[in-house]
Amino acid sequence: MKGQKRIRDYGIIIGEMQPGKKNAITDVEGVKVGHITLNDECIKTGVTAILPHEENLFKEKVIAASHVINGFGKTAGTIQIDELGNIETPLILTNTLSVGTAHAALVKYILKDNEDIGATTGTVNPIICECNDGYLNDIRGMHVKNEHILRAIENADKEFEEGSIGAGMGMSCYGLKGGIGSSSRMVKIREEVFTIGILVMSNFGVKNDLIIDGVKAGRIITEVDKSNVVEEDKGSIIIIMATDIPMTHRQLKRVCKRTGVGLSRTGSFFGNGSGDIVVGFTTANKIKHYEEEATVNIRILNENKINNVFRAAAEATEEAILNSLICADTTKGRDGHIRKSLKEYVNLVLKAFNSKN
Amino acid sequence: MKGQKRIRDYGIIIGEMQPGKKNAITDVEGVKVGHITLNDECIKTGVTAILPHEENLFKEKVIAASHVINGFGKTAGTIQIDELGNIETPLILTNTLSVGTAHAALVKYILKDNEDIGATTGTVNPIICECNDGYLNDIRGMHVKNEHILRAIENADKEFEEGSIGAGMGMSCYGLKGGIGSSSRMVKIREEVFTIGILVMSNFGVKNDLIIDGVKAGRIITEVDKSNVVEEDKGSIIIIMATDIPMTHRQLKRVCKRTGVGLSRTGSFFGNGSGDIVVGFTTANKIKHYEEEATVNIRILNENKINNVFRAAAEATEEAILNSLICADTTKGRDGHIRKSLKEYVNLVLKAFNSKN
Amino acid sequence: MKGQKRIRDYGIIIGEMQPGKKNAITDVEGVKVGHITLNDECIKTGVTAILPHEENLFKEKVIAASHVINGFGKTAGTIQIDELGNIETPLILTNTLSVGTAHAALVKYILKDNEDIGATTGTVNPIICECNDGYLNDIRGMHVKNEHILRAIENADKEFEEGSIGAGMGMSCYGLKGGIGSSSRMVKIREEVFTIGILVMSNFGVKNDLIIDGVKAGRIITEVDKSNVVEEDKGSIIIIMATDIPMTHRQLKRVCKRTGVGLSRTGSFFGNGSGDIVVGFTTANKIKHYEEEATVNIRILNENKINNVFRAAAEATEEAILNSLICADTTKGRDGHIRKSLKEYVNLVLKAFNSKN
Amino acid sequence: MKGQKRIRDYGIIIGEMQPGKKNAITDVEGVKVGHITLNDECIKTGVTAILPHEENLFKEKVIAASHVINGFGKTAGTIQIDELGNIETPLILTNTLSVGTAHAALVKYILKDNEDIGATTGTVNPIICECNDGYLNDIRGMHVKNEHILRAIENADKEFEEGSIGAGMGMSCYGLKGGIGSSSRMVKIREEVFTIGILVMSNFGVKNDLIIDGVKAGRIITEVDKSNVVEEDKGSIIIIMATDIPMTHRQLKRVCKRTGVGLSRTGSFFGNGSGDIVVGFTTANKIKHYEEEATVNIRILNENKINNVFRAAAEATEEAILNSLICADTTKGRDGHIRKSLKEYVNLVLKAFNSKN
Repeated sequence: MKGQKRIRDYGIIIGEMQPGKKNAITDVEGVKVGHITLNDECIKTGVTAILPHEENLFKEKVIAASHVINGFGKTAGTIQIDELGNIETPLILTNTLSVGTAHAALVKYILKDNEDIGATTGTVNPIICECNDGYLNDIRGMHVKNEHILRAIENADKEFEEGSIGAGMGMSCYGLKGGIGSSSRMVKIREEVFTIGILVMSNFGVKNDLIIDGVKAGRIITEVDKSNVVEEDKGSIIIIMATDIPMTHRQLKRVCKRTGVGLSRTGSFFGNGSGDIVVGFTTANKIKHYEEEATVNIRILNENKINNVFRAAAEATEEAILNSLICADTTKGRDGHIRKSLKEYVNLVLKAFNSKN
Repeated sequence: MKGQKRIRDYGIIIGEMQPGKKNAITDVEGVKVGHITLNDECIKTGVTAILPHEENLFKEKVIAASHVINGFGKTAGTIQIDELGNIETPLILTNTLSVGTAHAALVKYILKDNEDIGATTGTVNPIICECNDGYLNDIRGMHVKNEHILRAIENADKEFEEGSIGAGMGMSCYGLKGGIGSSSRMVKIREEVFTIGILVMSNFGVKNDLIIDGVKAGRIITEVDKSNVVEEDKGSIIIIMATDIPMTHRQLKRVCKRTGVGLSRTGSFFGNGSGDIVVGFTTANKIKHYEEEATVNIRILNENKINNVFRAAAEATEEAILNSLICADTTKGRDGHIRKSLKEYVNLVLKAFNSKN
Repeated sequence: MKGQKRIRDYGIIIGEMQPGKKNAITDVEGVKVGHITLNDECIKTGVTAILPHEENLFKEKVIAASHVINGFGKTAGTIQIDELGNIETPLILTNTLSVGTAHAALVKYILKDNEDIGATTGTVNPIICECNDGYLNDIRGMHVKNEHILRAIENADKEFEEGSIGAGMGMSCYGLKGGIGSSSRMVKIREEVFTIGILVMSNFGVKNDLIIDGVKAGRIITEVDKSNVVEEDKGSIIIIMATDIPMTHRQLKRVCKRTGVGLSRTGSFFGNGSGDIVVGFTTANKIKHYEEEATVNIRILNENKINNVFRAAAEATEEAILNSLICADTTKGRDGHIRKSLKEYVNLVLKAFNSKN
Repeated sequence: MKGQKRIRDYGIIIGEMQPGKKNAITDVEGVKVGHITLNDECIKTGVTAILPHEENLFKEKVIAASHVINGFGKTAGTIQIDELGNIETPLILTNTLSVGTAHAALVKYILKDNEDIGATTGTVNPIICECNDGYLNDIRGMHVKNEHILRAIENADKEFEEGSIGAGMGMSCYGLKGGIGSSSRMVKIREEVFTIGILVMSNFGVKNDLIIDGVKAGRIITEVDKSNVVEEDKGSIIIIMATDIPMTHRQLKRVCKRTGVGLSRTGSFFGNGSGDIVVGFTTANKIKHYEEEATVNIRILNENKINNVFRAAAEATEEAILNSLICADTTKGRDGHIRKSLKEYVNLVLKAFNSKN
C-alpha cells in the first residue's frame, strides 16, 4: 500500500473473488498494522504489530485460532490460543532471536494499561511470531529492543507499507527479498458482505520453486540468475488472518488451514526448516474478561456456507505472499549477502505470463 | 437403575456435587439408553444405544466433541465429530469385532428415516464405540447381527440397567466383572441448574489397581483372590458424556478431557492396550442440516464458570465406573473364564472404607 | 497402468523428480493393489485393496501415520494408527455407506489367518477408507458385499488399473469422472535410492477449479461445458502413501502432510464437504506383534535430509490425482447422472498448455 | 533433597515401584537441576533450570515430547518440540511474566557457546516454562533478570532443594505453599533397569481438593483452616519428565500423558485457569545437529513393555507434587498474602492416614 506497486497492479489477478478496498488485512474493520524498521548496514530487522481492534484487548478479547503448517518455529502464545480460543494482546512479529525481548516488551505494554493483571486477576498471553532473518541481518546481535515493540504498536494504522519493512526488513523468500505482504477478499453470504484479510511475513522457499499464478517463475528467474539456487528451504512464514465473519474457534481453525493452499500455490513444499504458523482471529463476538453471566449469546457462521470463506483465505494468502515479494526492494545485508527484489525479474515473468493467457 | 443397588447405596459418595434425579446419563433431558444382551454359554456380548434426543438426529444434529485418552481402540466416527463438532446419529456401543456390523446396521437405520441421504444430500457419520469382551465372549464368532442394533435402539428408554447388560455383558474391569455404568451431576451456574451425565462401558485395568473413593480396594481383593492378578492392563473404556449446558465444540472437548480425572481416581494408568475414548455432546443449540441463514445465534457457556462443569464430569465418571462394577454380576463365559462381581468383595472393601472415615 | 494412457504420456510432467519404474505405489517393494468393480446400470461402485507387504501383516506390522486434511469423512482405524504408529491390516477403499460391510469383511479375513486374535491375544484394527460415490452410484443400495472385499484383496497385484475401477468406479472429481490414480518418485539420499508411492481415490472439487500443472484447465473446460459448474465442493479424497524410506511415525506424519501441497496444486481448497484423509506407511522396520526384547533397533531417516521426501510426496500426489482423472472413462450412472472423462477435454487443455511452454 | 524431609520420610509411600537412589529427576544419568531464588519482602520468585545432559545440547539434541493437559499457560517452545521431537536447550522454569526475559537470556547463553547459530546454521528453540506466582510475588515488577537465568544454569547439580526455592519460591498449590518437587522410579524391563524422573513446579488447586495417597487431606485441613477455601482453581503445574529409556517422540508423548494420572490423584480437576504442561525427554539416542548420514540407527522401547513406564510416570508425578508441598515453607509475600506449609498440617493428615491403614 501507500502507493506501492503490487502484484495486481502488474495485471496478475489471483483467484476469482473481489479484494476489499485496500486489498489488505486492514480492510477488516478495526484492524491496524504498525512497523518499526532497523536498517543500518548489517542490521536488517524490525518489528511489525497487528492490532485486532482499538479497545482494550485484554478486557475485550477476540475469538481466535492457530494452525501449525510446519512447526520448525518459535512462535509464542499458541498453547493458550488453542485452549481458550481467544487472543488478548496485539500480535507482534519480529526475528527469531528477539522473541524474548518482544515478549517482555509486550508484557510491559499490557501491564501499563491493565493494573489488575498479576494483581487481582490472572496474567496475560502475549503472541509473538517470528522468522529467521539471519541471512541478511546480524540476528546474533539481538538488535531489537523494548522500545521498538512499543513504537511498532504506536505506529499502527489502517495504511501500512509492504515488502522490506518492519519485521520483514531482513526476510528472504524463494531466494529473493521477502517480507511483509497483505491482501483481502470480500465474502458475500446471502445478503451480507464480510471481509477476510491476510498479512504474511514471508521468509521461506528456494528460488527455483516460485510459482506466480501457475507460471513457474522460479525456473525463469534461475535461468538468468543462478545464485542461491541450491539453498535448502528454510526460513518460515507467518500468516495472520483477520476477519469480521462471526465464527467459533473451531470454524476459524478450519479457515486457518486453508491458508496452506495459497502457500502451496506459490511453490512451497512446507520445507523442513520452515516454521509455517497461522494465527487467525475474528472481530465479531468479543469475549469480555469480566463476563459475569452464566451464558452468553454469540452469532456464528452457518457452516454450510463456509466454502467461500475457505476460498477467500487461500486466495488472499497466495496474493499476500506475492505482494510481499513484489513490494520488497533489493537488499544488501551482513557479510555482503544480497537478496534481489522480484521487481528485477518481473518483466521476464510477465512475458511468460502473457504468452500463457 | 431399575432397582439395582449402586455404589452410592453402599454409602460411598463420590465427590461433592449432587447427582440428578436418576443419577444417570438420562437425567439429561431427551437422552435415552437401550440395550440388547446376548447371553448364551460362550456368547457374552450385546449392544447398547445412546440416543441424544428423540427427534431426527440427522436433521437436528447435536454439538459434540471427542477425546482420545489412549488410542488403542477402534471407535468409528470421531474424525468427523472433531472436524464439524457435531453428532448426527445415535451412538452404538458393542464389541470390537462387531464394529463393522453395527456400522452397517446403523447406516440402514438412518437411511430408512432419511430418504435424502446419499440421494439429494451427503452421507451420514455413524458413531460406533467398542471394547474387547473376548475374555468372556466368543468374540471371534461375531455374534452381533444387524437386528440387534435396531433392537437396542428401539429399547431406548429413560430407565435402563447397568452392569453386565447390553454391550457390557462380556466386559471385564479391574479383573472383575465390568460393563455399563452411569452417573450424573447437577451444575448450578448463577441461577440456572444444568445437568451433566456420564455413561461408561468399562473393560480395563488390573485387579490390584482398583481404587474406590481413595481406598485401595484392589489390594484388599487380591489378598483374598489372587486370580488374574498378573494380567496386563488391556481392554478399554468408552465414556459417553451428555449435557444440557450450552457449549461450543471446544468447550465440550475441554470437559471431555476431565473424564480422565475420574478414570485415574479409580486406579487406571491408561494402560497401553486400552482404548480409552470419550464422546461428549450437548443437547443445547441443535444444528439444522438444512440451515439456510448466513449466520445463526447460539448460546454458550461463559468460560469463567466452567470449573464446576469440569468437576462434575470427573465426579460422574468416577461414580459411573464404580456403578458399572457394583451392578455387574459374576459371569462365566467362554473356555470357563470367570469374572467375579465386585459385590462378592464389597463387604471387605466397606470394612476398610469405614475404618478410614 | 496396464497400457492406460496417463498424464505423463500427454507430455505433462509434474515436478522435477523421477518416478519409479511403474510410476505407481507398487514401485515400493512388496506393495500390491487389487480391485473389484461393480458396474451395472445404477450400481457404480467397488472396492480397492492396498497390501503393504505379502507376509502376515498382523504379525509383522508396518510403521504408519495418518493425517486429516479435512475431516468431513468416515475413514475407520485412524485413532489406533496415531496412537501406536502402525498398521496391521490391508487398507480397504470403498464407498461411504459400505464402510461397515468392509469392516466386518476385513475382520473375517484377518481372523481366518490369525487364530490368536480375540482368543489369546488382542483384537485387530481394520483400516477402511471411503468416499461418497452417490452422484453416479446407488449408494443407498449398499451393494458392496463381504465377498467383494475378499476378492479385491485376492486380486492384489503389482500391476493395477487406474481411473473408473475398483472403489473408484463411481467417483467424481472436479465435476469430471474421478477414481483411482497413482504415481511415484525416487528419492536419492546420499548414495541410497528410495521410493515413495501414492495412490489416490479422487472424489472432490468443482469443475471450474481444476488446475493441471499450473494451467487453469477447469476454466477452459467450463467454457465449453457449463454442466455442474455451480456444484458445491463435496466428496472427498483418500490419499495412501507407501514408502521404503525408514521413518518414525512422526516423520511419516510430516510427509503425509505434504500430500496436501499436491492436492492444492490441482485446484482444491479442501472444501467443507470433503473428507480429505491421508494414510501413510513405510515397509522398513517391521514391528513384530510378539516382540519379546526390551528394546529394538530401528533405522530412521536423518531428518536433515527430509526435504526431498516432502517434495516427492507432493509431486506424486499431484500426478496421482491427474492420473485418476485422465484414466477414468465417461460414466453414466443412477438417475441419468453423467460424469465426463477428462479425456474428452484433454486436447483443449493441451493447447493451452503448449502455448504456455 | 539436601536433607529435606520428604513425603516418603513421613511413611507415605506412593504406588508400588521403587524410586531411584535420590528419588529425584537427577537419578537419570546426566540430568542436573539448578535454582536461583529471589526472596525479599514482596519479591518471591526465581528461576529453576533443568539440564538434560552436560554436553552441548544444541549439537547433541535429546528426543523429546510435550503434552498439554490444560493450555491456560504460556510455555514457549512446544511447537518445535512436537514437530521435530527434540530439545536443544536447557529447560528454564520461572514466573509467567518473566518468560520473555528468560527467553532472551537463554538465547544469549546458547549463542555464546554456538557461534554457528544465526550465522552459518539456523536458530535455536528455547524452552521456557512458567507458572503465575502473583499471589505471593510482585509479579508485575518483573524482577527476574538476565543474570538470574545464567546463574540458575550455573548452579545446576545432581543435588538440589525442593519446595519454596528457585522458580518455586512464590508458587501456591492447593491453597498451601507449593513449589518445586521431584521423584523418580526405576523400571525393570527384562534384565535391564531404567530410570524415569519427574520434576514439578506446582501452583494449582484449591485447598479442599487435596488428596494424599487416597486420603482427603484437603477436607481435613479446611476444617481447621478456612482461609482461601473458596478460591478458584487457577495457577498451573509444569511437569518435566526425564528418562534414560530409549523411546521415540510418539512413545515419549504417550508417557507424558500419564503424568496427568498422578496429577489427578492429588486432587486436581485440571482447572480452567491452570496451565498444566508436560515436557519430557530421553537421554538415550542423542540427535546430532550436523548428522550427515542418510539414515541413523536408534534403539527404541518394545511398546509391549510400556505399561510399567506409564505406571512409573504416574507414580513419580504424584509423589513429586506431594514433595513440592511438604518441602515448602510457610511464606508471607506481597500485600500480606500468606501460604502455609503442608508441614503445619501434616500431623493431622498422618492421623487420618494411619487410621486408614
